[in-house]
Amino acid sequence: MRQQMIDMVYSVQDEICEMISIIDQISCREDIWEREEGGGGRSRVFSGGKTFEKAGVNVSVVYGTLSPEAAKTMGGGQKLEGDDLDFFATGISLVLHPINPMAPTVHANYRYFERGKGEKEGSWWFGGGADLTPCYLFEEDCKYFHNSLKNICDKHEVADYKKFKQWCDDYFYIPHRDERRGIGGIFFDDLHSGTKQKCFTFVEDCAKSFLNCYMPILQKRSVMEFNEENKRWQQIRRGRYVEFNLVYDRGTSFGLRTNGRIESILMSLPLTSRWEYCHEVEQDSDEEKLLDILKIPRKWID
Amino acid sequence: MRQQMIDMVYSVQDEICEMISIIDQISCREDIWEREEGGGGRSRVFSGGKTFEKAGVNVSVVYGTLSPEAAKTMGGGQKLEGDDLDFFATGISLVLHPINPMAPTVHANYRYFERGKGEKEGSWWFGGGADLTPCYLFEEDCKYFHNSLKNICDKHEVADYKKFKQWCDDYFYIPHRDERRGIGGIFFDDLHSGTKQKCFTFVEDCAKSFLNCYMPILQKRSVMEFNEENKRWQQIRRGRYVEFNLVYDRGTSFGLRTNGRIESILMSLPLTSRWEYCHEVEQDSDEEKLLDILKIPRKWID
Repeated sequence: MRQQMIDMVYSVQDEICEMISIIDQISCREDIWEREEGGGGRSRVFSGGKTFEKAGVNVSVVYGTLSPEAAKTMGGGQKLEGDDLDFFATGISLVLHPINPMAPTVHANYRYFERGKGEKEGSWWFGGGADLTPCYLFEEDCKYFHNSLKNICDKHEVADYKKFKQWCDDYFYIPHRDERRGIGGIFFDDLHSGTKQKCFTFVEDCAKSFLNCYMPILQKRSVMEFNEENKRWQQIRRGRYVEFNLVYDRGTSFGLRTNGRIESILMSLPLTSRWEYCHEVEQDSDEEKLLDILKIPRKWID
Repeated sequence: MRQQMIDMVYSVQDEICEMISIIDQISCREDIWEREEGGGGRSRVFSGGKTFEKAGVNVSVVYGTLSPEAAKTMGGGQKLEGDDLDFFATGISLVLHPINPMAPTVHANYRYFERGKGEKEGSWWFGGGADLTPCYLFEEDCKYFHNSLKNICDKHEVADYKKFKQWCDDYFYIPHRDERRGIGGIFFDDLHSGTKQKCFTFVEDCAKSFLNCYMPILQKRSVMEFNEENKRWQQIRRGRYVEFNLVYDRGTSFGLRTNGRIESILMSLPLTSRWEYCHEVEQDSDEEKLLDILKIPRKWID
């Protein structure tokens, strides 16, 4: 399974980056990096292109021995017998921030984790998801994105769209703002029902369908007209993205506190962002329409 | 002491804001706010003026009952008998972000805390400090700033510049970057040596000397010429400021997790900031000179 997952994430990274380099009309910066404690990764970042302010796609394969402290926070909720601190983790993680404020930021992450040899019940699991962060709400985009994800989930018995959609709304919550980061998508962790192969097939399907879920939205929105006010609102929303990632995101916190590769961890941050004191949106404005959805998530599919 | 400190912080806020409104040539936005659980504050923020990108000066007087959880993280290291969860806190906190990249951001905060009636040993304390965050290093500014602070400390037997300078370097450390937020200043917490009055007199002296420590630097640097590259570097340094405040600053974390007034807590964030993937400074450049000091803090006074 380790090799199968590694092959998959590298191949998906290739495919996605090829697409970005076509629409962005530039090539990426690639960094092959190693982790002192074991393993490494391949980070690819686009910046200065036609479509994206910043777009990062990172693959990592890391292994080693967990500190007893880190081990406690691990395990996807499983209580493993603490004797085996060896771990193995591989995954792909991407965040694409478009220049056009009408085009949503997208994030996706698919990962596989093992403790020890990954053979015992609860010692292996998959996690991941994909979610959309628009600055302006286009309901048809939200429906399309959620529908695409639901179609994938429906094909796999280990997946449950309704549960994963709720999980996503709960995970990407910014308590101090009482709003979600975006309009959601799916999120799952500690997935180990059925066999490894069945879980992998679902995760692979998600990862390989990423472009199909996002590209039609991007193509439609990134050619729309926008003005300075739209751009300013985008920058304020980018600020919220930073707040979520630095204060609440578990992956980011874990990476910062465990000697991860900083530039790959913070690759998810937007190129630019803005914090205005007491910024308020106008009543019945497009900005307010977005905020309403971030405060009370909607069911996008009947 | 409560009233004495309250009067002092309000009067210092007035004085500082008057100065800002003169040099910024605009008036501030003022918000008087109340805290549901007891107390409130007065926030004043300048934005769009001549000199500052964003400048916030906040005063708060809050009281109530601590949750046993919050109480544990409180107390400035003192182990109080947990029977008294009442608390009282007042302070002034300010962050000024100049437009000109040659002019440093400055932060200062002075606060007084009581547990219970604030009479028992260890049940009252002062905290605070002031620190400078330049994007470009002007050694004479650093020396002037530190020297001004040292002169204040030297006048008060409860203060120890050398210790407070070290404390500041340690506190404003960003582990994941292995750098400090700025060139330091002084930082102290849990100050309760001598009498309340002696501690107050020191803190009052610090707060009232703030303008004297900072204004000469601002005046010199905010008229300097700068180019787009300087501005870009400033934006990147602003990003680090955000990283420190959102990930490590105790006051910010505490505020976000305890239903503080969000806009007053996040007032400290810059108006705009920037994250470039794998940004590197040129060898022997002015940018590198700053980074060297952030990595290995200097002793500014012999």
